[in-house]
Amino acid sequence: MVNESQQSCSGSSSSRSDGGSSSGSEGSKDSSRCSTPVLDAERHERLRDKMRRRQDAGDKWFSLEFFPPRTANAAVNLISRFDHMGAGGPLFIDVTWHPAGDPGSDKETSSMIIAYTAVNYCGLETILHMTCCNQSKDDITGHLQKAKRLGLKNIMALRGDPAGEEWEEEVDGFNYAVDLVKHIRNEFDDYFDICVAGYPKGHPEAESYEADLRHLKEKVYAGADFIITQLFFRPETFLKFMKDCQAIGITCPIIPGIFPIQGYHSLRQLVKLSKLEVPQEIKDVIEPIKDNDAAIRNYGVELAVSMCRELLDSGMVHGLHFYTLNREVATTEVLKRLGIWNEDPRRPLPWAVSAHPKRRVEDVRPIFWASRPKSYIYRTQEWDDFPNGRWGNSSSPAFGELKDYYLFYLKSKSPREELLKMWGEELTSEESVFEVFTCYITGEPNKNGYKVTCMPWNDDPLATETNLLKDQLEKVNRRGILTINSQPNINGKPSTDPIVGWGPSGGYVFQKAYLEFFTSSEIVRALLKVLRKYELRVNYHIVNVKGENITNAPDLQPNAVTWGIFPGREIIQPTVVDPVSFLSWKDEAFALWIEQWAKLYEEESPSRMIIQYIHDNYYLVNLVDNDFPLENCLWQVVEDTFELLNSPTQQ
Amino acid sequence: MVNESQQSCSGSSSSRSDGGSSSGSEGSKDSSRCSTPVLDAERHERLRDKMRRRQDAGDKWFSLEFFPPRTANAAVNLISRFDHMGAGGPLFIDVTWHPAGDPGSDKETSSMIIAYTAVNYCGLETILHMTCCNQSKDDITGHLQKAKRLGLKNIMALRGDPAGEEWEEEVDGFNYAVDLVKHIRNEFDDYFDICVAGYPKGHPEAESYEADLRHLKEKVYAGADFIITQLFFRPETFLKFMKDCQAIGITCPIIPGIFPIQGYHSLRQLVKLSKLEVPQEIKDVIEPIKDNDAAIRNYGVELAVSMCRELLDSGMVHGLHFYTLNREVATTEVLKRLGIWNEDPRRPLPWAVSAHPKRRVEDVRPIFWASRPKSYIYRTQEWDDFPNGRWGNSSSPAFGELKDYYLFYLKSKSPREELLKMWGEELTSEESVFEVFTCYITGEPNKNGYKVTCMPWNDDPLATETNLLKDQLEKVNRRGILTINSQPNINGKPSTDPIVGWGPSGGYVFQKAYLEFFTSSEIVRALLKVLRKYELRVNYHIVNVKGENITNAPDLQPNAVTWGIFPGREIIQPTVVDPVSFLSWKDEAFALWIEQWAKLYEEESPSRMIIQYIHDNYYLVNLVDNDFPLENCLWQVVEDTFELLNSPTQQ
Repeated sequence: MVNESQQSCSGSSSSRSDGGSSSGSEGSKDSSRCSTPVLDAERHERLRDKMRRRQDAGDKWFSLEFFPPRTANAAVNLISRFDHMGAGGPLFIDVTWHPAGDPGSDKETSSMIIAYTAVNYCGLETILHMTCCNQSKDDITGHLQKAKRLGLKNIMALRGDPAGEEWEEEVDGFNYAVDLVKHIRNEFDDYFDICVAGYPKGHPEAESYEADLRHLKEKVYAGADFIITQLFFRPETFLKFMKDCQAIGITCPIIPGIFPIQGYHSLRQLVKLSKLEVPQEIKDVIEPIKDNDAAIRNYGVELAVSMCRELLDSGMVHGLHFYTLNREVATTEVLKRLGIWNEDPRRPLPWAVSAHPKRRVEDVRPIFWASRPKSYIYRTQEWDDFPNGRWGNSSSPAFGELKDYYLFYLKSKSPREELLKMWGEELTSEESVFEVFTCYITGEPNKNGYKVTCMPWNDDPLATETNLLKDQLEKVNRRGILTINSQPNINGKPSTDPIVGWGPSGGYVFQKAYLEFFTSSEIVRALLKVLRKYELRVNYHIVNVKGENITNAPDLQPNAVTWGIFPGREIIQPTVVDPVSFLSWKDEAFALWIEQWAKLYEEESPSRMIIQYIHDNYYLVNLVDNDFPLENCLWQVVEDTFELLNSPTQQ
Repeated sequence: MVNESQQSCSGSSSSRSDGGSSSGSEGSKDSSRCSTPVLDAERHERLRDKMRRRQDAGDKWFSLEFFPPRTANAAVNLISRFDHMGAGGPLFIDVTWHPAGDPGSDKETSSMIIAYTAVNYCGLETILHMTCCNQSKDDITGHLQKAKRLGLKNIMALRGDPAGEEWEEEVDGFNYAVDLVKHIRNEFDDYFDICVAGYPKGHPEAESYEADLRHLKEKVYAGADFIITQLFFRPETFLKFMKDCQAIGITCPIIPGIFPIQGYHSLRQLVKLSKLEVPQEIKDVIEPIKDNDAAIRNYGVELAVSMCRELLDSGMVHGLHFYTLNREVATTEVLKRLGIWNEDPRRPLPWAVSAHPKRRVEDVRPIFWASRPKSYIYRTQEWDDFPNGRWGNSSSPAFGELKDYYLFYLKSKSPREELLKMWGEELTSEESVFEVFTCYITGEPNKNGYKVTCMPWNDDPLATETNLLKDQLEKVNRRGILTINSQPNINGKPSTDPIVGWGPSGGYVFQKAYLEFFTSSEIVRALLKVLRKYELRVNYHIVNVKGENITNAPDLQPNAVTWGIFPGREIIQPTVVDPVSFLSWKDEAFALWIEQWAKLYEEESPSRMIIQYIHDNYYLVNLVDNDFPLENCLWQVVEDTFELLNSPTQQ
């Protein structure tokens, strides 16, 4: 009935999922306690442990390889692709190292920065490739230190292609990947998870297949945690390779690299680079259709699906690594057909978590950045300590300035011409601005026939949750309550609810109704009169661009507006309306009028002056209905405001 | 519409109660934030500010004076009186300084320790008297330092009575109260609130009434914050005195000292000590009834009520200070008749807060000590940092040992003979123990006709809230589920609910159902089988005296079982089931069987052996039903357990 082992406090195991009872007797008085409730064990695990846990649980998984973009615009697209493909639940992504592209630099197109962005801004577990040949020890160490500083935790250690044709070993230099593995373990101990490359057909430069296997074993014994293979064309190639590895004592995970053929030219180029030979049966199919991209892609998808099925069915393969060539369609289709594209509607927290190690404990954010999570991450990137447990840890420093609205991970995905079509080539009045907001809410085309799919404050279409409020939002936007953020009240829905649920199952989630909008000073005057009637019930913050601020928040305390109650845990309150950070958000929210919208127009043009007028004269308002068990009163507040405005005696 | 001042973060003002809107513009980015939600502004205020706030709000208040007890038993009774009279809501109490009684010592009867106990264990704002004549500077400083260390924040600075008949001023010594006031301000700056005595008839030793007023002014100008007066018999005496004070520039609060006449002898003695003269009209009433205590007390109450009414009606008096003579009845009656005895059912938190300054931020406690809050305070007295925001701050040290079960503030109010009548002069079986538990729950007399009004784990009768569960509790106790703590589930009742409410109004409170009990290993075996069916829903901890511990708590995390959602605030979660502290509580809970119960009987007696058997063999169990919105399933769990025990196949 009683066993001896004491359950540990670390997040790496959960008795819940073990299903068992555990016990502890002596010594527990002195054990340290978790300072933050562990809602999501995965957030605290390193990649190799995640991999092992998934394998032990019998889960199949996938990972995705990308290369760094060539241009800043391509970087914006790639980041957006990370977000799309991240939704399918890859165990990790990896970013290749392009020695020619200044891969360790601070450029937005460098391997380093792309990997950092994936981790920090897209919340993806990421492996950064790194090659070592023709580089000095200091350079390598510098790159590794920088990677560590930026929150990267996984390195794919490669030799890389020698610069010249006639490559010679350097004495004391990095000649092989194994040198890099050893160097990482020497200099950084166990900090990084290390991945190395395996060659199912043997490395083209190896003396023999057997010799290459021995090199691989050396890399593993030097400290590599797992292996990703070069692409191959037949499943039996991989399965044989895997058996051969095991036979010589390589026991770490070996992940097959899958290359869905996406086009004739890309195949040719890859084959040339990798010095692989395309089997005759594939050539026979491809050559006749080489100018038909769609046909080749279809064939590639078929081929990949069938090969992956065979690998998975073998029982030896638990994860599949995809060479995406930075493209979305083919890989996504393969994954969906395999049934391992896992668009899990469940979220560990109401907002998407960052994978940066220092943000592991982050469990509360102000609601204002709900539609601009990347901007929030950017503006808090210098914080060493995230509000944990409670918002408002006084040791948290101020928000960073958001001076550059064109940081590539914050940039709108839509080009200027498209924005003009959505938001109006020419604005004639404040009402034409109301119209844009209304079209964004309704999804109806504007008067020129274009749908408004984004706004300066929302780079994406309306959230499913906001859709619950659509009718009301449409009504108020038409009348000049220009909404940029809102959530309905929720009184204890199951944490597994597909729309508003988050956190582990078995819990209950709650929300206070929230509404945030820009509006004219005339409306604010009436609103303030109306709010007196709602004094205890509604908390408000009303601020203009000059920072004139009107609030009834008690003692500048934050108001929790999203919280969850879970079995056996403390209360989690991941979203707050924080009066102090609202003043930082206000600067950003007002500036977006100018930076994203007004600047589309010529200086001095009427359109620009209308946006400038709104920026200068409107107020940013947020309202919280504290009575979450009752019907949301915020619509009534707005209704009352318009009634007051329309009553002749009051005006 | 907009004003300029920025609302501060300090707890001393609440815009909520001001009712107004406040504003802030620049500089708010750097402002520090409250680290703990301010639920109860009073907790952070100093006495003089509380006094002023009550006066500004037009609230009438009262305070109570006590003297230190002579014996340890009297100390137990006095502490219990603090709890009773504290329920009426005094603004403060004060404890007199008895130079003959070693007032600064660590004895349980010293002024210092009684004041400390009132602050720390009874949660009462307390003034410690201190006299200075015939004492060295070092002694005085030592007393003040000790008072500060113990969390006392208010001193009543007095001269005290000179030891000999022929008193002479000492050069450089403390000759008058004003010397002590100056000394406190010199050595401790503004740390203490200082009170001084005023004499409505002039001090008996003063040259004149006018000279005494000048002395009072000196004391105030030297740094006293307010004045409490000597007793008087006619309201006009006080009102004239107050006007005279104001006329010479004394503007601080002056609180009339009220002495309800409670008996002939106590009146005579007090009059002798204070050198006051009893007015003839009072003597005329009292002399004829001097041997009728009840009659004198009734007259005293009448007289006090009418005098207090006149004082309050004058508009000059906001608070009344009562010389209680350590008695309860007369003062309580006067207060109730005046309508200022304010038994507010509303609580700032579900448990009674301590007034010790270092516990100001304390906002979460484990549920286990719910009925033994003084023991919890004792065992955490060495903590420098209270879990704030979250339970489980790993910097909190271990619980202190509870070796001495006879600490005067933990001692049972009932003497041994009474306990034996309640718990059985002779126990014959485990079932006779079940009977005691059952009688405590039902309030019915036991088989010898005595009511069981306390238990080793509960020194008071059943809480109102527990009464909600009475029928179920009775049923299970009869069958050997010996309950010592429980709470019903609550799904969002208003924070003003008279039974389960706490915190400011406008909020909603929640609870998870909780049940804690001792039971036999046979029942535990069946219970564990039953609990498998409730795996996700019910969290349990089951431990015996040896520390063998069975739990399904995830990662030893605490489970929040009481929480509240308030307008404009973060979530408050004041009560948790914490697996780590449960093991400290277990030691105490098991030891109480022996210390409080078994030791009532002779060694080797059958009664003692029965309790010893239970102590050695029973388990302490706690159960939490996580599904607070559904009907409490814990009774079903117990029901299922007995069903399993009674099914022949399972046994």
